[in-house]
Amino acid sequence: MLIARTIKQVKKAVSKARLKNKTIGFMPTMGALHQGHISLIRKAKKDCDFIVVSIFINPKQFGPNEDYLKYPRVFRKDRELLEREDVNLIFFPAVSQMYPDNFSTYIEETHLSQVLCGASRQGHFKGVCTVVAKLFNIVGPDIVYFGAKDYQQAKVIERMLIDLNFPIKIKICPIIREYDGLAMSSRNSYLDNEQRKNATCLYSALSLAQVLIQKGERDAKKVLAAMKGLINLTNGVKVDYLKIVNADTLGDIQIIKGKVLIALAIFIGATRLIDNKELYVK
Amino acid sequence: MLIARTIKQVKKAVSKARLKNKTIGFMPTMGALHQGHISLIRKAKKDCDFIVVSIFINPKQFGPNEDYLKYPRVFRKDRELLEREDVNLIFFPAVSQMYPDNFSTYIEETHLSQVLCGASRQGHFKGVCTVVAKLFNIVGPDIVYFGAKDYQQAKVIERMLIDLNFPIKIKICPIIREYDGLAMSSRNSYLDNEQRKNATCLYSALSLAQVLIQKGERDAKKVLAAMKGLINLTNGVKVDYLKIVNADTLGDIQIIKGKVLIALAIFIGATRLIDNKELYVK
Repeated sequence: MLIARTIKQVKKAVSKARLKNKTIGFMPTMGALHQGHISLIRKAKKDCDFIVVSIFINPKQFGPNEDYLKYPRVFRKDRELLEREDVNLIFFPAVSQMYPDNFSTYIEETHLSQVLCGASRQGHFKGVCTVVAKLFNIVGPDIVYFGAKDYQQAKVIERMLIDLNFPIKIKICPIIREYDGLAMSSRNSYLDNEQRKNATCLYSALSLAQVLIQKGERDAKKVLAAMKGLINLTNGVKVDYLKIVNADTLGDIQIIKGKVLIALAIFIGATRLIDNKELYVK
Repeated sequence: MLIARTIKQVKKAVSKARLKNKTIGFMPTMGALHQGHISLIRKAKKDCDFIVVSIFINPKQFGPNEDYLKYPRVFRKDRELLEREDVNLIFFPAVSQMYPDNFSTYIEETHLSQVLCGASRQGHFKGVCTVVAKLFNIVGPDIVYFGAKDYQQAKVIERMLIDLNFPIKIKICPIIREYDGLAMSSRNSYLDNEQRKNATCLYSALSLAQVLIQKGERDAKKVLAAMKGLINLTNGVKVDYLKIVNADTLGDIQIIKGKVLIALAIFIGATRLIDNKELYVK
């Protein structure tokens, strides 16, 4: 396994793989890897011959009051995990490698990125699109892998790939959950024992919504009210948003029908967690 | 010479050239080709084995009160010219091919693009960066060629290539001028005989500036005042901007020293013309 700290090293290693006609699979990550990331790598290994994982905590996708500085940095652990998964190349750049002086070009998706997390986190998806496009141009992958836990992110990236004609395929992989339903996330490590227990309310709320819809409820307002009721039973939790949207456009819907996404973000103490469930409703 | 109207056709033709290990040279244009364009093509032919020219009048780089609708459309003539120059592939897409429904991703350079033409033409460079990045991803060239007549555009694209890590080299080629100094431009065709004569004031003003600087003048204000005086002697001309800037940062300078750019835009009737001169001053 190669560890590249510079763009030049990445290009050299990938060119070599290309010459051997290898298919390049790529996953951009911020490190603090968990089973969710591993599931992407294992999926990629089925499709591709050369697997690249980047670990870069991108300052440009964090707001001024967000957790950039405290985001977990555990490179040694991540490296061991990637070694075990037989990844071919880690790209682990410094901030100065990604954003040299005079950096001034940004990519912005202007529709899908405006709602849900984009409404709460000003500039977040602009930072994501910009860094992801850079990484795509550096690595030059055939297929990239994103997790459905960050559903909106995956949709925004998918839109960017189409709109800017990147010659890259995207695969969006299912959410991986803990034994009690909590979606895997690097931010789960912020939670103390009490908060960790309370965090199950995200999945409980999604499960409740699913049951209500399966029982025939089609009024989004009613389902959302029930979810909110359930979350409000939990101590120390503040809802950021709670939405039922069209899963393609991410626009609000009144009547639950077709491909829908139930999505929520909550604060538990200072920790912001998100989760979602995609459903096809007849 | 192939004429592709779809992205798929371009990709197929370029892939074929790639398999033969050809170097791909690319020039995005808006058609109405002139000697300036031809000079880029001839330069490209020296470096590359497979030459691609796109002809696309990009609606997103025109403001609401600009000349999108009246911009010259002379495809048959352009095609004949490109055939004579032995170009390998023309990409001549419809607007719907480039901007399908739901298009929502834009690229913006936020520093160099804010001054000169960017200050007068809101959103212009955002439209340019977006379409150019799309074309780069569609064609996948090794080297791209831009004319120094649109100096700021070339600098903004160069910045975008660096910032977003496009694996593409840019070459910026000298301005080509008419016998009387007027810079070649598709928009020159808008001018009537009288206006065409008056349009030489752009080059005269630049030449005057150069003479003054050669004679030792280093005060930007004085040089600009002299240029303005000369332009004001011409009938039916309105100055949009008249600037002496650092040729790399495009920031205003007071003292003329180092690599400087003298740049101007004027209106002659409804026609907006630009010109510039890069100088190295000791």
